Amino acid sequence: MQLLPACYLFKGLSESQFLRLRSIVKEKPMRKGQFLMNEGQAAGALFILKNGAVELITTVNDSFELPIAILRNPGDCAGTSALVSPYKYSLSSRCSANGKVLVMEQARLKELITEDHSFGFIIMRNLAEHFLEMLKEARQETKTHFKTFFKSIHS
Amino acid sequence: MQLLPACYLFKGLSESQFLRLRSIVKEKPMRKGQFLMNEGQAAGALFILKNGAVELITTVNDSFELPIAILRNPGDCAGTSALVSPYKYSLSSRCSANGKVLVMEQARLKELITEDHSFGFIIMRNLAEHFLEMLKEARQETKTHFKTFFKSIHS
Repeated sequence: MQLLPACYLFKGLSESQFLRLRSIVKEKPMRKGQFLMNEGQAAGALFILKNGAVELITTVNDSFELPIAILRNPGDCAGTSALVSPYKYSLSSRCSANGKVLVMEQARLKELITEDHSFGFIIMRNLAEHFLEMLKEARQETKTHFKTFFKSIHS
Repeated sequence: MQLLPACYLFKGLSESQFLRLRSIVKEKPMRKGQFLMNEGQAAGALFILKNGAVELITTVNDSFELPIAILRNPGDCAGTSALVSPYKYSLSSRCSANGKVLVMEQARLKELITEDHSFGFIIMRNLAEHFLEMLKEARQETKTHFKTFFKSIHS
């Protein structure tokens, strides 16, 4: 279980906080094609990749899949919506190579955070940092679209 | 100063936490055209709008401005990068109508958060929720671009 310190969410936790975290972890196998979570559904769990690979996807018009990211590194995580109100998955994730994931139930995570605000602070700080990074990347993408558009009307 | 409870960042703080927060607030006037913060620079302060209006913008190719949002409601905030490592503004903000802002220095905010992890937890949780909402909006925009692209190659 030395996997947990590899996840950005848990950077800065103390040994005793890691101990409590490990007590709520369950390891589960996953098979290629299996969905770990579905966009729009209740975010019942957080997933940490042990091995294998997981695609994060969103659906356009209920028909086309738009890829967001592929998780391949041990410690990569999916389902952070399980940490944040309104606790609904904003993406789907599908196993793209057989492997194993660590699963933490949303209700157990919430207990840990409520019991120990220092634990909660560290996780929320790491999560906010990560979301801000992703937001900057998304804005960068918008800038690229804008540049392409600008070139097209001036060419 | 009943403005602070109107800001999403401070939702859930106790009366004594609001009291400590108010002790680090300075009110400042702003004039149309004045920049409160500049993209890429050290995030030295968080700003809460009292009255007037503030544009959030990002620059493309160091020459074109891309508008991100306009803050008009008392309690709207700018400069949340002052709460999150690496403490650099990811956007610029410019006053677009004369008014007043509440200013909180980054170093003082960090002190409050470090001294009271319950305070830090509440602010980071609210911030993570807000960033996730903005990220969903940004993804929605990408979906719109994707749909437009898909239509154009199939028309």
